[in-house]
Amino acid sequence: MKYGFFDDLNREYVITNPQTPYPWINYLGSQEFFSLISNTAGGYSFYKDARLRRITRYRYNNVPLDLGGGKYYYINDGEEVWSPGWAPVKKDLDNYECRHGMGYTKILGELNGIKTSITYFVPLNTNAEVHKVVINNKSNVEKNIKLFSFVEWCLWNALDDMTNFQRNYNTGEVEVEDSVIYHKTEYKERRNHYAFFSVNAPIYGFDSDRESFMGTYNGFHNPDAVFKGEPTNSIADGWHPIASHCLEINLKPGETKELVFLLGYIENDPDDKWEGKNIINKKKAKEMIQTFSTIEAVDRALDDLADYWDQLLSKYILDSHDDKLNRMVNIWNQYQCMVTFNLSRSASYFESGIGRGMGFRDSNQDILGFVHQVPDRARERIIDLASTQLEDGGAYHQYQPLTKKGNNEIGGNFNDDPLWLILSTVSYIKETGDYSILDVMTPYDNDESKSKPLSDHLKRSFDHVLNNLGPHGLPLIGRADWNDCLNLNCFSSEPGESFQTTTSKDGRVAESVMIAGMFCYIGEEYARLMEKVGNKEEANRAFAEVRKMREVIMEHGWDGSWFVRAYDDFGRKVGSHENEEGKIFIESQGLCIMGRCGLEDGRAIQALDAVEERLATKYGLVLLNPAYTKYYIEYGEISTYPAGYKENAGIFCHNNAWIMAAEAIVGRGDKAFDYYTRIAPAYTEERSEIHRMEPYVYSQMIAGKDASRFGEAKNSWLTGTASWNFVAISQYILGIKPDFDGLIVDPSIPKGWDGYTVTRQYRGDTYRITVKNPNHVSCGVSKITVDNKEISGNILPLFGDGKLHEVEVILG
Amino acid sequence: MKYGFFDDLNREYVITNPQTPYPWINYLGSQEFFSLISNTAGGYSFYKDARLRRITRYRYNNVPLDLGGGKYYYINDGEEVWSPGWAPVKKDLDNYECRHGMGYTKILGELNGIKTSITYFVPLNTNAEVHKVVINNKSNVEKNIKLFSFVEWCLWNALDDMTNFQRNYNTGEVEVEDSVIYHKTEYKERRNHYAFFSVNAPIYGFDSDRESFMGTYNGFHNPDAVFKGEPTNSIADGWHPIASHCLEINLKPGETKELVFLLGYIENDPDDKWEGKNIINKKKAKEMIQTFSTIEAVDRALDDLADYWDQLLSKYILDSHDDKLNRMVNIWNQYQCMVTFNLSRSASYFESGIGRGMGFRDSNQDILGFVHQVPDRARERIIDLASTQLEDGGAYHQYQPLTKKGNNEIGGNFNDDPLWLILSTVSYIKETGDYSILDVMTPYDNDESKSKPLSDHLKRSFDHVLNNLGPHGLPLIGRADWNDCLNLNCFSSEPGESFQTTTSKDGRVAESVMIAGMFCYIGEEYARLMEKVGNKEEANRAFAEVRKMREVIMEHGWDGSWFVRAYDDFGRKVGSHENEEGKIFIESQGLCIMGRCGLEDGRAIQALDAVEERLATKYGLVLLNPAYTKYYIEYGEISTYPAGYKENAGIFCHNNAWIMAAEAIVGRGDKAFDYYTRIAPAYTEERSEIHRMEPYVYSQMIAGKDASRFGEAKNSWLTGTASWNFVAISQYILGIKPDFDGLIVDPSIPKGWDGYTVTRQYRGDTYRITVKNPNHVSCGVSKITVDNKEISGNILPLFGDGKLHEVEVILG
Repeated sequence: MKYGFFDDLNREYVITNPQTPYPWINYLGSQEFFSLISNTAGGYSFYKDARLRRITRYRYNNVPLDLGGGKYYYINDGEEVWSPGWAPVKKDLDNYECRHGMGYTKILGELNGIKTSITYFVPLNTNAEVHKVVINNKSNVEKNIKLFSFVEWCLWNALDDMTNFQRNYNTGEVEVEDSVIYHKTEYKERRNHYAFFSVNAPIYGFDSDRESFMGTYNGFHNPDAVFKGEPTNSIADGWHPIASHCLEINLKPGETKELVFLLGYIENDPDDKWEGKNIINKKKAKEMIQTFSTIEAVDRALDDLADYWDQLLSKYILDSHDDKLNRMVNIWNQYQCMVTFNLSRSASYFESGIGRGMGFRDSNQDILGFVHQVPDRARERIIDLASTQLEDGGAYHQYQPLTKKGNNEIGGNFNDDPLWLILSTVSYIKETGDYSILDVMTPYDNDESKSKPLSDHLKRSFDHVLNNLGPHGLPLIGRADWNDCLNLNCFSSEPGESFQTTTSKDGRVAESVMIAGMFCYIGEEYARLMEKVGNKEEANRAFAEVRKMREVIMEHGWDGSWFVRAYDDFGRKVGSHENEEGKIFIESQGLCIMGRCGLEDGRAIQALDAVEERLATKYGLVLLNPAYTKYYIEYGEISTYPAGYKENAGIFCHNNAWIMAAEAIVGRGDKAFDYYTRIAPAYTEERSEIHRMEPYVYSQMIAGKDASRFGEAKNSWLTGTASWNFVAISQYILGIKPDFDGLIVDPSIPKGWDGYTVTRQYRGDTYRITVKNPNHVSCGVSKITVDNKEISGNILPLFGDGKLHEVEVILG
Repeated sequence: MKYGFFDDLNREYVITNPQTPYPWINYLGSQEFFSLISNTAGGYSFYKDARLRRITRYRYNNVPLDLGGGKYYYINDGEEVWSPGWAPVKKDLDNYECRHGMGYTKILGELNGIKTSITYFVPLNTNAEVHKVVINNKSNVEKNIKLFSFVEWCLWNALDDMTNFQRNYNTGEVEVEDSVIYHKTEYKERRNHYAFFSVNAPIYGFDSDRESFMGTYNGFHNPDAVFKGEPTNSIADGWHPIASHCLEINLKPGETKELVFLLGYIENDPDDKWEGKNIINKKKAKEMIQTFSTIEAVDRALDDLADYWDQLLSKYILDSHDDKLNRMVNIWNQYQCMVTFNLSRSASYFESGIGRGMGFRDSNQDILGFVHQVPDRARERIIDLASTQLEDGGAYHQYQPLTKKGNNEIGGNFNDDPLWLILSTVSYIKETGDYSILDVMTPYDNDESKSKPLSDHLKRSFDHVLNNLGPHGLPLIGRADWNDCLNLNCFSSEPGESFQTTTSKDGRVAESVMIAGMFCYIGEEYARLMEKVGNKEEANRAFAEVRKMREVIMEHGWDGSWFVRAYDDFGRKVGSHENEEGKIFIESQGLCIMGRCGLEDGRAIQALDAVEERLATKYGLVLLNPAYTKYYIEYGEISTYPAGYKENAGIFCHNNAWIMAAEAIVGRGDKAFDYYTRIAPAYTEERSEIHRMEPYVYSQMIAGKDASRFGEAKNSWLTGTASWNFVAISQYILGIKPDFDGLIVDPSIPKGWDGYTVTRQYRGDTYRITVKNPNHVSCGVSKITVDNKEISGNILPLFGDGKLHEVEVILG
C-alpha cells in the first residue's frame, strides 16, 4: 500500500494521505538552524544543538503520537475550523498534499473552496524558518476567514524543559511588538539569544500564553481561541509561552493572498542586549524580518535553495533503466547523506535530540556519503572529529556540536572508533586530491597545546589497534566495536545500567574479528596513503601489519564456513557454530571480505553463501542468526532485545551495505544488487503498511524474521545506512570509485543489465561514464575509452580543464 | 469561585466540576507502592522510586495538560462513549463527583442512567492499586455496555522512557493470560520485577499494544477500539505496551455490578524467575489477585485503610470555632505531612519524579510534621538520612530512595543541611522520649566501617557550622542555605549551568545570617539535648557557642530595622537598606527570632514590623522586597526569576510559617494567625480561580505582588510548607508543644478567640486540653489543671498509664 508517490522531476515525495503509518518527516536547514517537519506540520526547530538550544517544543512519545508540537495553522472560516496540514484539527479535507522536497516541505490543504499552500523552509545563510502561506478562494463567493498561526517555545534546554517544571513554569517571558512575538525566557540572565515569530501583515490579535490560547482542558486539535475565532492577546508570564498570530483575511472569489511568517533566532552581543529597561534589543530581528518581508524575497530565497541542491546533487547523476534506483542514487540517498552529515544521530523522530551529540564513528562514516558534495565541510568535520581524539589514539565516542568538546558522560574505549578517522580522511583525499589536510595542526582532546599534524592522528589511530591486541592477536573490542550492543566487557546485572559505559572487566581478553577485518580494509588504505605521500617506511610497516592481521584472521577468525564475530571475555567464540544461538553474525563477513580476507582461497564466497543461507530474508539481511532468546551477561545489550529487533537479529541496514560491497568485490553483482533492493526505501514504497517508515529514506533497522512485526522499519533518517548504501551502490555496484589518482571504474552489476550512465563531477572535471554490458556479465571491464580514446587500466585520467569528458566502458 | 466542597465528616474534598483550574490530585499509598491521581483519573504509579521504578507512564507538559496518562475507564453504551471520570473522553456527564480522601480517591460519573463509581486506593501492605468499580443501571431499561479499562506501562526508568526511543521502541513485552495483562519489559534480562493489570471477571477482549487500541492518529480521548466497541486482542511487541480490558456488561433496570481491577507490582527471586521458556513466574501475582478477588475483600481493605488513617489522625485533634482551621489541622495539613514524608520532593504535578530523590534538609524538616503520627518511621528516616552524612559533618544534599545512597550528581556543601538533622532528632526525642536513638550506630557516607553513634553525627552537624565561619564570624553559606536560589559562590555566566552545583568561588567569604539564626535556634536545642543526656560539658560548650553567635548576629547581622540576609562574596550585605533591590528578606527575620535574637531589646518586634510593612500581602508574605529586576551574577538563581515568582519575591509559603512562629514567640497571636490564614489552603477555597491549586493542600509558592498572576499558586503538595505550617499552628499558635519532659502548653492566639480544645496523644497517654480565654488575651497561661488538679508551670505531667487526662488551661 502506498501513501503517496515520487515526483522525481521536482525531487519530491508527495504524500496524498495524511494518515501515513507513522509521521513521515523532512529536515529543513543545512547550516546552523534546523527543523524537523512531518507531513502534517509536526516537529520542531533548534539552533546547532538539539539538546542545548531548542527553539520550539516537541513531545516525543505523545498520544496521539503525531501531535507532539509543530508549526501549526488553523483556519476558522466562520462555519468550520480546519488545518491546512490536516493536523492538528484533523478535519477531513477536500484536498491534501504534502510535498517533501530538498530542504523544504510544502503542504497543501483545501476545504470549502479555500485552498492553502504553506511552504516551510530555512533559507540559506539564515537562522530562521520561513513559512510562505498562500491562500486562494476557489469558490465564487466572498470569504472572510480568520487564520491562526501557532508555535510553542521551548525554554532552550530540551532536557531541562521536559523535566524541571518547578523552575520552568515560572520563567517564561515574551514581548509582543507589532506583528512580532518575541520569546525571551532567561534572556534577562545568562542568555544572549532570543527567538521570534513574525508575519508580514497587520494582525487582528495574538496569543503568547498557551493556556489562554487553548483553554485548560483543550488540546492542539481544539484550541479555544481558534474555535471562538477570538485571540486573547495574552502575554505569557511563566507557564507555557507560545506564539500565535490571528489575521482576518477577506478573499473575493478567485482572489489569492500571500503571507510570510518567519520563525527566527537571534544572538546579541552581551554588551548590546537591551534597548530599554528589560526590553530586548530587536535590531537584528527587525533586519531579518525586513529581508523576508516580501513574497518576492521569499521566492528568491527558495530559488537560491533550489540552486544549492541542484549543485549538490549534480556531483553524481545516474541514468539507468530503473526509476527506483535512479531516484535513490540521484535524489534521496544523497539527500539523506547530507542530513546525516548535518545532524549525525542527534534529532529524529526516534532520537529525542537530548541524549547524543555527534558520534565519532558515526560522523566519520557519514563523510563517506557526502564528501563528494561538500568536500570543504567534510574537511572541517574531519578536523573537528580528530580534535577530540585522545593522545593514545583512542577517541571520545561523542562530542557536543555546540561546544565541539568530547562528551565525558559517554567517554571512549570503543575500539573501532579510531580506524574510521583514517577512512574518512582517505575518502576526502581520494575525492579532492587535497593531501594538505594531513598537515593541519590538530589538537588532541581539544587541547591546542597538544596539536600535531593530522597525519600523526592517523598513525595513532592505526597504532591504537596494534597497541590493543588480545590473546589471539586480534584487536581487543573495548566497550563495543561498531556494534554498540555487543558488550563483551560489561557484565551488567543492574537494571538501567548503561551497557555502553559500564565496564566490569579489564578488557584484555575479548577480541573483535570485525575490527580485525576493518584493520585489514582501512589499514591497507592507510598504507596506500603513506605510499602516496612518500613515507615508504611507514607504508611498508602498515602493509606488513595488515598482512599479519589477515593471517591471524584466517587462523583464529575463521569458523569453518564463515568468519567468527568475536571472542568473549572467557576466550570463547562468539558467532560460531559452537554457539547455541548467535552462530553467525553479519559484520565480520562484510568487513573481513572488504579487508580482502579469503578472496584467494574461496573462503570469502563460502562466508557470503552462509550469509545468504542464514541471514537473508525478503526484507534484508538480519544481523545474526539464530536470534538470542535469553540474556547473556557476557554479551550485553545485544541479548536484551526481543528476538528479531535491533542488533538481536534485526535487519540492521547499515551492515547490509558491507555485504553488498563484499558481493561486488567477489564479482557477484546480481546478489549485490538484489540485497540493495531489499532494503532501499524506494523499493519498499508499495509495502508502506508493513515497512511503515518513509519510503524515501533509509531506516536504521527493519524487524527481522524472528519478530512478529517482520518487515517493519524503525529509526528512520539518522543512520550510517545512508552513507554506506550510497558507497555500496555508487562505488561498488555501479563501480565509480574515487581513488588517489583518479576515478576507478569497476562495476559489479546484475548480468541482466544492458548498461547505464553516470555523470560524475570530480576534481573540477565532469565525466559522463556510459557503461555498456553487451555480453551480460556482472563485472570485468574489457575496454574503456575517454573522449573516444581508449585507455589502459580502469582509472580515468585527470584533466583539470573543468570540461565534460565522455567515457565509454564496455564490460565483459 | 469554588470547584467543590470539604466533606469534613468523611475527611474528603469533593470536586463537583471536573474542569478545575489545574488537575487537582491525591496520593495513594503510604509504604512502597505510590500513585498520583487527579480528579479526572490522570496520573501514574511507581514502586519506591519515581525515577527508577516507574510502573505507568505519565507525560508532564502535555497538551492538553490533564491528559498525560492515567488509570482511565471508558464506557461504550451502544450509543455514546464516555468516561466516568469525565476525562479522557470529556463527554459532559449528567453527574460527576470526585472525592479525594485519605489514601483513596473515589470518582463518580453518571450518564444516560448508568452510574459508575470507581474507588482507587493502595491497600495497606500491598504493592498494588485497587480500582473498585461499581456500575448501576438507574434507568428502567436493560443496558448492555462495554467497559474498557486502560493503563499505559512505563518501561521502568522514567527518564530513559521519555528519551531513549531508539532502544525503547524495540523492547516492550507483555504476556496475557485469562483476564490478566502482564508487563514484562526487560524481565528477560536484568529485571526481576514485572507489573500486571487484572480484573476479577471474564473479559470480552483486551489490548496490550497502544496503537492497536488507539489507532495511530487518535488520542486518549477517542481510542479506536472503544469507539468501535471492539478490542483487538493485540499483543505488544515493542512500541508502547498498555493494558486494556474490555468487558461486556448487561444490567437489568436497577441492577448493580461490581468489579475489582488490580494494578500490581511483583518482584521475584532471581533464581525463580520463570515458569517456562520465556514465561514469567506468575505465582505471586496470582496470590495477590486472589487476595483481592472479591468485593468483600476489597471493602475490608478499604476499612483497614480507614482505620489506619483514623489512628494517624487521632494524635492531634483540634476542636475550634473555625471549621477551616479544624479541617486544616485535623485532616489536610497532617495528611499532606504524611505525603511529604513518603515522597519528599520526588513526584508531584510539578516534580517530574526524575530529577530528585529525597532531600536531606527537606526530609529532616518533613519529620517535624509527621513525627507524632509515625514515630517509628521517623526514627528509621532519621537514621537513613544520617547515614548519608559525610565525616566532616556536611551532607549529600539528596539521596535516592531505592538505593539510600547519596546522590553524587548533586553533591553537598549546602551549609544549612547538617543543622536540620539535629532538629529532626530532637523532635523525635521530644515526641517519644526515646533517647536510645542517639546510640544507634550510624554510618558516614553509607560506609558501615565508618559507623558512629547518632549523637556523634549531631555533634559533627553542630561543629560543621563552627568549622565553617566567615569573616564576620557568621556561618559560610556554601552552595546555598535553605534558599536554594541564593547562590553566593556560583557566579554563573553559562546558560543552562546549574546554580546549585556550580561553584566558581572558594566560598570562604559569603555568609548566611539565616544559618546563624538557625544555629541559635537549633544549636540551643542541641545544647538542651546534651544537658538532658547528662553531657554537661558539651551542653555548656554549645550554649556558649550559641550565645556567641547571637552576639555576632546582633553586631553584624542587624541592618537597623531588620536582620540582614547574608554577606556576598565581596563582603557586601544582602537584604539590607543599602541594596537597591532585595532590601529585606524573610528567612533571617523568622529564624533569628526563633533563635531568640532581639527578643529582649525590641529588635525582634522591629524586624517583624518591617516584615508586615514590606513583605505582607493579602495572599501571604513575599520572600523579599523589592523584587530583583535584573540578573545579579553574585546572587545567582534568585535573580533569574521574573519579579514575583518563586524565590524572587514570590510568596514562598514554607518560610511564612517561621514568621508565624516568630509572631507567636513575641506574643502577637493575632498577627501569627492572620498570616496563617492568608496562605492556609482551606482559606483559599473561595478564590480557587485565582489560587488555582488544590484548596486542601499547601503549595510551595504563590505568585507575589510584583507578578501579573499575583495570588496564583504553584508546586502544590510536596513542600516543607506542610510540616512547618503544622508546627506553626499546632505548636506555636495553638501552643501544644512536645518537649523533652512533656507537653508544653503555650498558646499565642487571636485575642478574639474564646478558646478551643486539642486532644493530643502523647507517649501513650491522651490529653484533652481545653484552652479558655476569658480575658481575651493572645498569650500567657494563668492556670492549668490536669485531671482537675492545678499544676505549676506549663509542662503537662507524664502519666504513662495510657489513659485520658483532662487538662484545662486558662489564659490571661
